[in-house]
Amino acid sequence: MTSPSPLPAEFDLIARHFRPLAGPGALGLRDDAALLMPPPGRELVLTVDAMVAGVHFLPDDPPDLVGRKLLRVNLSDLAAKGAAPLAYLMTVSAPRGTPDAWFAGFAAGLAQDQATFGVSLLGGDTTSTPGPLSLSLTIIGHVAPGTAVHRTGAQPGNSIWVTGTIGDGALGLQAARGRVADPTGHLLGRYRLPRPRIGLPIAGIASASMDVSDGLVQDLGHICRASDVGAVLLADSVPLSEPARAAGPDWFITCLTGGDDYEVLMAVPPDREPALRSAAEAADIPVTRVGHFTSGPAEVMVRRTSGESLALDKGGWSHF
Amino acid sequence: MTSPSPLPAEFDLIARHFRPLAGPGALGLRDDAALLMPPPGRELVLTVDAMVAGVHFLPDDPPDLVGRKLLRVNLSDLAAKGAAPLAYLMTVSAPRGTPDAWFAGFAAGLAQDQATFGVSLLGGDTTSTPGPLSLSLTIIGHVAPGTAVHRTGAQPGNSIWVTGTIGDGALGLQAARGRVADPTGHLLGRYRLPRPRIGLPIAGIASASMDVSDGLVQDLGHICRASDVGAVLLADSVPLSEPARAAGPDWFITCLTGGDDYEVLMAVPPDREPALRSAAEAADIPVTRVGHFTSGPAEVMVRRTSGESLALDKGGWSHF
Repeated sequence: MTSPSPLPAEFDLIARHFRPLAGPGALGLRDDAALLMPPPGRELVLTVDAMVAGVHFLPDDPPDLVGRKLLRVNLSDLAAKGAAPLAYLMTVSAPRGTPDAWFAGFAAGLAQDQATFGVSLLGGDTTSTPGPLSLSLTIIGHVAPGTAVHRTGAQPGNSIWVTGTIGDGALGLQAARGRVADPTGHLLGRYRLPRPRIGLPIAGIASASMDVSDGLVQDLGHICRASDVGAVLLADSVPLSEPARAAGPDWFITCLTGGDDYEVLMAVPPDREPALRSAAEAADIPVTRVGHFTSGPAEVMVRRTSGESLALDKGGWSHF
Repeated sequence: MTSPSPLPAEFDLIARHFRPLAGPGALGLRDDAALLMPPPGRELVLTVDAMVAGVHFLPDDPPDLVGRKLLRVNLSDLAAKGAAPLAYLMTVSAPRGTPDAWFAGFAAGLAQDQATFGVSLLGGDTTSTPGPLSLSLTIIGHVAPGTAVHRTGAQPGNSIWVTGTIGDGALGLQAARGRVADPTGHLLGRYRLPRPRIGLPIAGIASASMDVSDGLVQDLGHICRASDVGAVLLADSVPLSEPARAAGPDWFITCLTGGDDYEVLMAVPPDREPALRSAAEAADIPVTRVGHFTSGPAEVMVRRTSGESLALDKGGWSHF
């Protein structure tokens, strides 16, 4: 319901910033649709995430990091299914007056991560919005048919594993608000720039998997409900970074329940733990055992080494 | 940067409204990603469009029509490539406090059109936003390899054809503003609910094609630039609906340059015109010849039968 404005024109903006990101089949972003010949005999894995300024990232976050985070939160979902990335489509709804430099930085960040992760832009749509910057990205990956790791396969007796460290992203958001000290910038860095665990070959190793985006306890609860198993999370086994430890015990619950980890959470049968360790070492991705699944009700028991139990099953992010 | 609120919980909302839309491979929307085994030997066709309340639709538009429009603007892109629809992924960023009935109506509209067009929901993401309702939909279709109709194939001497009638959508928006009379509601109906021309088999018939979404003149210019040909648009041949004619000559330019037509614009070699007519008749889709392509510069000449030329090459919608 707004009037056209002459400059910078939508198509010029696409040509300058997004066309250089276009890969095979994107037709230079000059057509109504893109073409994709799926890799022969492979099953496609698809996921989509939206990011809104002020909800999923800070409005003054550097635009290259916003672009990279948008791509990486989706790559993280592929990683948690054991999929290899292929291509993506994206929508950008930006306020009028968004500086050209913002688009340039955003595209530069995408270009950097396209090279890192071996994906390219397949198509997109750029529109104006009277609201905050709103982004959406659909990513396409692929797996050998039938090998994608679901959330549903966890069995009682499987152990619970996570990659990397937990809580840095949530503490990074608190650091941005000045509530947590972050002298090295590690925490804010983890909030702004997830590290998707692409390259960890979990097919045939993990019986269930998902990425940790809404908080470890809540996401573990998702696996419990999907697999109809209980979980005992050994809180003191959860790997924390040095900066997260330095934040002190008052922030420990935030680490367990905050979001934005983008690590992989797995159920692993005992006889496959050696395979996980080997695969993780080969991929240079740290993995830690943090508990086990039970035949109990589909909920998460959080236990301290002191024997204390924490009631955190509902902990985690919900948009509504 | 907003706080979680308990109800209606995000996951409950997804379960009630969106899970019933989930098709094969969507894993009940209970996983990080969806699976899609591409139809053997077919090439995929992918496109994405964003829609923002107050920009692409009226904030008080009925939610079922918003859902259907979101799906249909994307189906229209597939139709213009000659592709058959398969599945879609969607993001919904909604203001907190969006009534549950809005989501119910939105999902009901999607369900209705899923049945009409033979597509299903493959995945999605639902988030909150401090801004207006923002939607994004990625659709996946398929074609026989190499048969997708591009924008680049128009040749001098090809004729220009459009499906349906032009200008109703743009006049419908004016009708909603009370500027154009719309006693039957036809115009507003066309604005709110596009009719994607799925089922018109243009492969092997059209040498170039796109859907008309940003205005006939501007979109014809896109084909000219992509194909490096000129175009003569015979303005008085452009098919108008009865309500559009009734709006009077003052609105004629709006019909030619307004957006939201979602008709198919094609370049057709003369020897394939009979095939187009037959195919269109079989599909019960009206088609009209509205001009021809030339070897002139890549721009659109708009001619009246009076001989008058209209300089409208820049006419049409731009977001920036």
